[in-house]
Amino acid sequence: MPKLSEWLRPTRVAYAHCDLPCGVYDPAQARIEAESVKAIQQKYQDAEGQKKPSESVEDFKARCLTIKEERADLVKHHLWVLWTDYFKPEHLEAHPDLHDTFWKATKAAGDAKKSQDPSQGQELLDLIKEIDSIFWETKK
Amino acid sequence: MPKLSEWLRPTRVAYAHCDLPCGVYDPAQARIEAESVKAIQQKYQDAEGQKKPSESVEDFKARCLTIKEERADLVKHHLWVLWTDYFKPEHLEAHPDLHDTFWKATKAAGDAKKSQDPSQGQELLDLIKEIDSIFWETKK
Amino acid sequence: MPKLSEWLRPTRVAYAHCDLPCGVYDPAQARIEAESVKAIQQKYQDAEGQKKPSESVEDFKARCLTIKEERADLVKHHLWVLWTDYFKPEHLEAHPDLHDTFWKATKAAGDAKKSQDPSQGQELLDLIKEIDSIFWETKK
Amino acid sequence: MPKLSEWLRPTRVAYAHCDLPCGVYDPAQARIEAESVKAIQQKYQDAEGQKKPSESVEDFKARCLTIKEERADLVKHHLWVLWTDYFKPEHLEAHPDLHDTFWKATKAAGDAKKSQDPSQGQELLDLIKEIDSIFWETKK
Amino acid sequence: MPKLSEWLRPTRVAYAHCDLPCGVYDPAQARIEAESVKAIQQKYQDAEGQKKPSESVEDFKARCLTIKEERADLVKHHLWVLWTDYFKPEHLEAHPDLHDTFWKATKAAGDAKKSQDPSQGQELLDLIKEIDSIFWETKK
Amino acid sequence: MPKLSEWLRPTRVAYAHCDLPCGVYDPAQARIEAESVKAIQQKYQDAEGQKKPSESVEDFKARCLTIKEERADLVKHHLWVLWTDYFKPEHLEAHPDLHDTFWKATKAAGDAKKSQDPSQGQELLDLIKEIDSIFWETKK
Repeated sequence: MPKLSEWLRPTRVAYAHCDLPCGVYDPAQARIEAESVKAIQQKYQDAEGQKKPSESVEDFKARCLTIKEERADLVKHHLWVLWTDYFKPEHLEAHPDLHDTFWKATKAAGDAKKSQDPSQGQELLDLIKEIDSIFWETKK
Repeated sequence: MPKLSEWLRPTRVAYAHCDLPCGVYDPAQARIEAESVKAIQQKYQDAEGQKKPSESVEDFKARCLTIKEERADLVKHHLWVLWTDYFKPEHLEAHPDLHDTFWKATKAAGDAKKSQDPSQGQELLDLIKEIDSIFWETKK
Repeated sequence: MPKLSEWLRPTRVAYAHCDLPCGVYDPAQARIEAESVKAIQQKYQDAEGQKKPSESVEDFKARCLTIKEERADLVKHHLWVLWTDYFKPEHLEAHPDLHDTFWKATKAAGDAKKSQDPSQGQELLDLIKEIDSIFWETKK
Repeated sequence: MPKLSEWLRPTRVAYAHCDLPCGVYDPAQARIEAESVKAIQQKYQDAEGQKKPSESVEDFKARCLTIKEERADLVKHHLWVLWTDYFKPEHLEAHPDLHDTFWKATKAAGDAKKSQDPSQGQELLDLIKEIDSIFWETKK
Repeated sequence: MPKLSEWLRPTRVAYAHCDLPCGVYDPAQARIEAESVKAIQQKYQDAEGQKKPSESVEDFKARCLTIKEERADLVKHHLWVLWTDYFKPEHLEAHPDLHDTFWKATKAAGDAKKSQDPSQGQELLDLIKEIDSIFWETKK
Repeated sequence: MPKLSEWLRPTRVAYAHCDLPCGVYDPAQARIEAESVKAIQQKYQDAEGQKKPSESVEDFKARCLTIKEERADLVKHHLWVLWTDYFKPEHLEAHPDLHDTFWKATKAAGDAKKSQDPSQGQELLDLIKEIDSIFWETKK
């Protein structure tokens, strides 16, 4: 769950001084997709209770995997965009772990495709939260 | 700018009890893309000051249009998903303008492709904010 | 099966007076994808008889689900485009059920992902036919 | 304009006995996108009269090109799918020009990206009509 | 490891006399995706040994199928682009089997979706190698 | 022309001990797209000589930019996949500049969208070649 302080940033849009294309970056995009990943892992564990009457448990699980694959890809994509497009050399100086944190987070997104365990999804969310903290630190 | 109260929702993930696929919905996805749309419209107006030395003003403007086209499409997509997948008949009863608000907002996203005026982008953001209010109302 | 009268429209292209981007709309795009959805549901029911010798029944069914997911998404997409881009306020006045019909049809496309029953696919096709009737009514 | 006889095929869905993925093929998909291509070429020629007040002639033309690029790609895609997935060796025997007709049509779709002349778009539509005739011939 | 001489082909780009878009074609794109297809077929056969501890054999196989579906689509796409965009009538004269070879290869890519047998993937690779030979023959 | 010896690398696939999805990685994918980027920059410089008679110089340049945008995105994508999916901690130990090289290369791909100068495209190709060297070093 995002910390209260994360959402207490009335100036967030005003801070977005970056270049075209969009100039608007927000780790929330990666986080929302990662929340989907974890939610799918949870539902997979309770397939019997979560599936619709119109589908079998096997079908439901197969759909979980297909959809998780896509969501995890979107997590990766949003993180990669942040890493390459938003972060600048001066940020790296202030946050020497920047590269490693992104590497771990995108690898965790890849691992999420191979894991049906919600605690794995939570680890992914924790790594995204680290990135989110660095991101908003650079906005100050 | 999102109202402070919009971000003061520590329980937001806990509220997401919807069906697979993801069960996680958030109007922030549409909003972030719409912020990009408006930022591009602003940069278009100041093309001379915003372009890189390595590109001409004409090139910069052409790129603004191409990228805005995509971002506006993403706004539409995220709104359509919310409308069809998240909202249920009981929400419509409580918010009889639901369909119309979404229709206007997605049409405004389409208009954004044809307008380089940031005030148009602001109208789009205002409509998304209306949707955001309804959305979080239903989560209470 | 589309009614004969649906195809008896020699003037269909001439009627397309809408704005760029394309100015050409046709509910046939949604219908063709929905026919695929129903055909996949039918083949799923006869997996043993439909699968290739080079794949197992389980594999065939898993592929049915993956492909149906995509086709159903395309149905949604084509319907959303019609709803937002083609239909105008004057059409809504003449067809007050417009929003609801699109909402039901796109929701039925979503349900198609969770159902392997061809009668569900038929319901989706019936809803698209309603939209098709309204569409051609507005072209008169 | 599609010939009346083209639309007089009440059995069209019943004929679709092909393999999963979809088993449903229809040259209408390529034709609709090609109609968009031609409509864009026409609007480009009348940019002054077609553009919205909120965009310049240059912007409108740039958008025409971007959108035409995508539509022409979709024409290619739908034709390629028909060629590889629908047509079988026995069809080639009965229609020895099959390969060449598809080659010409997909090349014409590529040329459409480089031409703003609606008569070029019409040539593309004529080639798709040839394919449509062959297609329905094979369905008899 | 690509030998130095591979990077020392000053004529490679110079040979690309085709139209914008890219003017750069290379059958390696199709080949790399086809190698993925075959690798997935091999891993499917050894699912027990290849799966991660965090996933079941059934899950691993389902993911194999989903991913193979996409990779095979990319093979088709790259081959179609080569066929339509790169090859010219004079190439067809010199290589009268051109159309048929591409038809077979793209059909083999389609078959790869329905087969978990690595020897099927090898046949696909062999067909791509034929195309590769023709391609480089035309570059001489 | 790829030499016979290129196809005679029996160890190429065998070297790919990575996880499903594909287990097949090759920096050639990024390189080919980057060659397109540079070729487009070159053609842009000679727009008058490169455009088709059916398009204006302005149209040709606008299309150059749109297509370059996509190709540059593909370069980024292929590089990101290599960085996250292929490279492992032991590779980082042996090549401590790994992260930085990928960061520079993906940033150069982003810069390519804003530059019409072929020497910029060459810098991108040089960075990809560095990555290619590291990649094949790890395969030894």
